[in-house]
Amino acid sequence: MTELLSEHGCFGGVQRFHRHESAEIGLPMRFGLFVPPQPRALLVFLAGLTCTEETFAIKAGAQRLAAELGLALLTPDTSPRGANVAGESESWDFGVGAGFYLDATQEPWARHWRMESYLLNELVPLAQTELGLDAARTGLFGHSMGGHGALTLALRHPGCFASLSAFAPIANPMQCPWGQKAFTGYLGDNTQPWRAHDASELMRAQDAAPYPAGILIDQGLADKFLAEQLQPEAFEAACAAVGQPLTLRRHEGYDHGYYFIASVMDEHLRHHAARLGAAEAP
Amino acid sequence: MTELLSEHGCFGGVQRFHRHESAEIGLPMRFGLFVPPQPRALLVFLAGLTCTEETFAIKAGAQRLAAELGLALLTPDTSPRGANVAGESESWDFGVGAGFYLDATQEPWARHWRMESYLLNELVPLAQTELGLDAARTGLFGHSMGGHGALTLALRHPGCFASLSAFAPIANPMQCPWGQKAFTGYLGDNTQPWRAHDASELMRAQDAAPYPAGILIDQGLADKFLAEQLQPEAFEAACAAVGQPLTLRRHEGYDHGYYFIASVMDEHLRHHAARLGAAEAP
Repeated sequence: MTELLSEHGCFGGVQRFHRHESAEIGLPMRFGLFVPPQPRALLVFLAGLTCTEETFAIKAGAQRLAAELGLALLTPDTSPRGANVAGESESWDFGVGAGFYLDATQEPWARHWRMESYLLNELVPLAQTELGLDAARTGLFGHSMGGHGALTLALRHPGCFASLSAFAPIANPMQCPWGQKAFTGYLGDNTQPWRAHDASELMRAQDAAPYPAGILIDQGLADKFLAEQLQPEAFEAACAAVGQPLTLRRHEGYDHGYYFIASVMDEHLRHHAARLGAAEAP
Repeated sequence: MTELLSEHGCFGGVQRFHRHESAEIGLPMRFGLFVPPQPRALLVFLAGLTCTEETFAIKAGAQRLAAELGLALLTPDTSPRGANVAGESESWDFGVGAGFYLDATQEPWARHWRMESYLLNELVPLAQTELGLDAARTGLFGHSMGGHGALTLALRHPGCFASLSAFAPIANPMQCPWGQKAFTGYLGDNTQPWRAHDASELMRAQDAAPYPAGILIDQGLADKFLAEQLQPEAFEAACAAVGQPLTLRRHEGYDHGYYFIASVMDEHLRHHAARLGAAEAP
């Protein structure tokens, strides 16, 4: 049962916010869905640390061109909320607002922190059904922690997403403080299972290019998290090793925020539209 | 002395946020300034109730086309902050976040609530100087309370703004609850001085069309404030009475928020660019 919380006319389509009872999460979850005038494909955006289902809809400026291209935009929340797990709100980079798009195996997180199963088994199918679109018409992108989510979920679930891109993704989380903290908490001290949730490790393990039509990544060079947390060069090297075409663009003067995301949004929407068989804008 | 609080690369230009000591307000004030790659004109946006200098920059999606057209975007805050006037934060529609773009004459507001003098004597000249642009290259627009601000300041200060538009403005504040509350508090019980701050009254008092090249207003028809608070028909009638060309567009399905503003933003930017001698986009 999906409840409509609000809807707003937007570029000839409608920006909606919903709440539904998630069986995977075991709690109510919220999500945003922009429905263009003529939906031809679904694009799922995974947001970064501290964000909600509203952040992208408010800040990214994506609806204008998405309306033109016929792209519906699904924006999940970034974690369960209301679980009341001890310590869930003590850090901005772990717990609430920081689900890292995986299923936790460690207590006290394992019951509710199941963002991967939630997205793959529940929310994306719900949106596909609502729009009458299947995986061949579903793309995935994300920012920072959500860039990690996009790259890892696309690589872990072949055939589920037909196009892939990211903004400033956490590209090698095993090797950075954000990722190490999250993986230790959600997956445990043994680093072996971490590999299955690290985009660079997952890419390096491929036998052939999983996205032969190419992956697009944009990265700002004034991003204060670049060197320590993001490490796109690790993913770049992994793509090169397996022959995965990657367009990794580095932008002088751009930081980690939504002013950067908005500035390169159009190219990402066109990247997905071309690969999802949505119409190119004139 | 203007302090730079933050700057963000944005569509080839830069979105900045500043703080400065305002002599008119007697307190520090914040403002946003988007500087496009080649600034050819300045467009001042006045925001609505509860907003800050950041709201438009984050939500309106204006920087993309503004960068193309060479429009710098100045976004003032909506009131003094930090005055610690008794009751200043008791209402969302009066006091902090609700300056109504006028100079208060009543105590305890008269000392700090001087948004009109602040904008006309201090902030707009500061931005014009910074960009090397004069009034012939300065336009004004705004939303809701800021639409009221745009229409009234443009009509009260002939020659200060060369182009004018509004989104869902409070068009006849003397006749609506928001306006009556604000005018009573800031200007007193005598309604005679209110007329000089009411867009419809100001327009009706003109001898000739003050904006012969036309004023643009967009209004959503799903806007819950339309009938009681906004009353564009009063301004429309006043324009008709004095021969002021007005394009008032009413949009089925759009509400009072920034999803609506973003949806019609491009036409407003082009409206101003054409009248300010900025380049039209190709």
